[in-house]
Amino acid sequence: MTNWGILACGNIARKFAQGLVFAPNAKLLAVASRSQEKADAFGAEFGVERLYGSYQDLATDPDIDIVYIASPHTGHCEHAILCLDSGKGVLCEKPLAINAQQVERMIAAAQRNERFLMEAMWTRFLPMMNQVRAWLDEGAIGPLQALYADFGFRAGFNPEGRLFNLDLGGGSILDVGIYPLALAVQLFGEPNRVQAIANLSPTGSDEIALFNLGFPGGAMASLSSAIRATTPMEATIVGENGLIRLHRPFWKATLLTIEVQGKDAVTTARPFESTGYQYEATAAMEAMEQGLLEHPLMPWGDSLILARTMDEIRNQIGVRYPGE
Amino acid sequence: MTNWGILACGNIARKFAQGLVFAPNAKLLAVASRSQEKADAFGAEFGVERLYGSYQDLATDPDIDIVYIASPHTGHCEHAILCLDSGKGVLCEKPLAINAQQVERMIAAAQRNERFLMEAMWTRFLPMMNQVRAWLDEGAIGPLQALYADFGFRAGFNPEGRLFNLDLGGGSILDVGIYPLALAVQLFGEPNRVQAIANLSPTGSDEIALFNLGFPGGAMASLSSAIRATTPMEATIVGENGLIRLHRPFWKATLLTIEVQGKDAVTTARPFESTGYQYEATAAMEAMEQGLLEHPLMPWGDSLILARTMDEIRNQIGVRYPGE
Repeated sequence: MTNWGILACGNIARKFAQGLVFAPNAKLLAVASRSQEKADAFGAEFGVERLYGSYQDLATDPDIDIVYIASPHTGHCEHAILCLDSGKGVLCEKPLAINAQQVERMIAAAQRNERFLMEAMWTRFLPMMNQVRAWLDEGAIGPLQALYADFGFRAGFNPEGRLFNLDLGGGSILDVGIYPLALAVQLFGEPNRVQAIANLSPTGSDEIALFNLGFPGGAMASLSSAIRATTPMEATIVGENGLIRLHRPFWKATLLTIEVQGKDAVTTARPFESTGYQYEATAAMEAMEQGLLEHPLMPWGDSLILARTMDEIRNQIGVRYPGE
Repeated sequence: MTNWGILACGNIARKFAQGLVFAPNAKLLAVASRSQEKADAFGAEFGVERLYGSYQDLATDPDIDIVYIASPHTGHCEHAILCLDSGKGVLCEKPLAINAQQVERMIAAAQRNERFLMEAMWTRFLPMMNQVRAWLDEGAIGPLQALYADFGFRAGFNPEGRLFNLDLGGGSILDVGIYPLALAVQLFGEPNRVQAIANLSPTGSDEIALFNLGFPGGAMASLSSAIRATTPMEATIVGENGLIRLHRPFWKATLLTIEVQGKDAVTTARPFESTGYQYEATAAMEAMEQGLLEHPLMPWGDSLILARTMDEIRNQIGVRYPGE
């Protein structure tokens, strides 16, 4: 049995806790919030035994094996390092941090403490992604050429909220742009060409961003993100012999279509229970059991690529977070 | 009855002639090729009376009202001006020319001769586009925010062929990129931000190009084209209250889906007969009957925007045609 702690008790923590119920051998032993009241309410909802009013108390609980970091983007670095330095494994909500410099510090903390660290890129562990990887491994659509993917939804503008507030790492790229970007990096590695345009909100965060990437092997990716527009939310992987469509909402697709030249298109279902966050939790536990510090399907190198690429995109569109 | 001539007898001329059969009051009276043999063969196939072995002979046939220019991109400017200066109306295959400078010369020729000139952007006249315009006119999806559209197909590499040969205006942007671009311009006008990356073929033409556009009102377009990759070939128009999907192949879609927030998605069919080129022919004839020099649905201004934008895209990706 692996004992989990959850650091911060917001919406994403709730989704993760709902999923964790479906992860075998996982026990949500403790939750922490800066507000004891919030921790108590969250704990009551999920039947959690240990309810902490400070992150430090969670980090130093000797019975906790791994902490899921669910604080706002701007807190990830500090909170992950707090837990790593206390000897915990860490599964940290995406984006791993607000920039590459912070990601490097987190990786250094995992290395010096010899503890597991993974960016919670949960979509890479969903059943549909196993099917996508299987198709790609067998070369089902031939050499890969391009990815088209977008993730945009329409939120009401709230200058104080985490989506729009730069103090909380606001903007579409870090919140949802990372999904199409993570798929591109999974397929093609690190881009050597990055090009972005965006519209910024009155608070200076990106409301909608279009970013095109080119990769050393010649592959290309046409990607976008939005927090003020509901976009198609689809992904299409293009190969020389066909294409794979991840149907809306592509990042947690349950329907896939593969079209191979000269054959009929085939649509296949890959449903999952609950919120789907249980798969990344199980993956993290398996990696820790094997004594790994990083997971082969979401390694530190990929987190660095994501952070560096988002840094470059933000640099081009003029989005800066406090302290940068 | 309007008497048509077709200048150059390639594939696109064949498709146009097949469509023209379905255009009321249109008669294909003459065709011209630089090869009398080709003109004869084409004429036999479509029952054409007058078969010319030179473009000049077609241009000076006193019974011809309007000429459809079907030569390679690099010939459009010269051939359209030849016909305009001979007093003919001109429907010229897209792109109207290989660059904005040529387009300006063609428009000047139409003006000084007071003759009709239209870029053969046939897709704007298809039944589905009437439905799209009707939805947009009634504000069915609210204020428009973005367009996602791509047109890519996989051709075999042939350095001599018109798709790859710079001497013939080769490259994906002029051949198929103009379709998503023309839709963006129809929706949003002239972009004030243009950003493109591309892979070039060994002949220096663009094999695949991704281009993002921003427009003065804040709308954005994520577009792409390819002649070496089969892409999703879809278009999605995003508004604040919903979206409109032009199903594959979007530029000549027969299926449309509209999704309005809070309502069920509705898919509707807008089929057409033959190749669909009859609608632009009919539109051109109607405009000429009204004494117009340009068509309100495909005005000269739009052709200039298309040409200027493609010039900028090619400038960014380093594609130059001979003489530029």
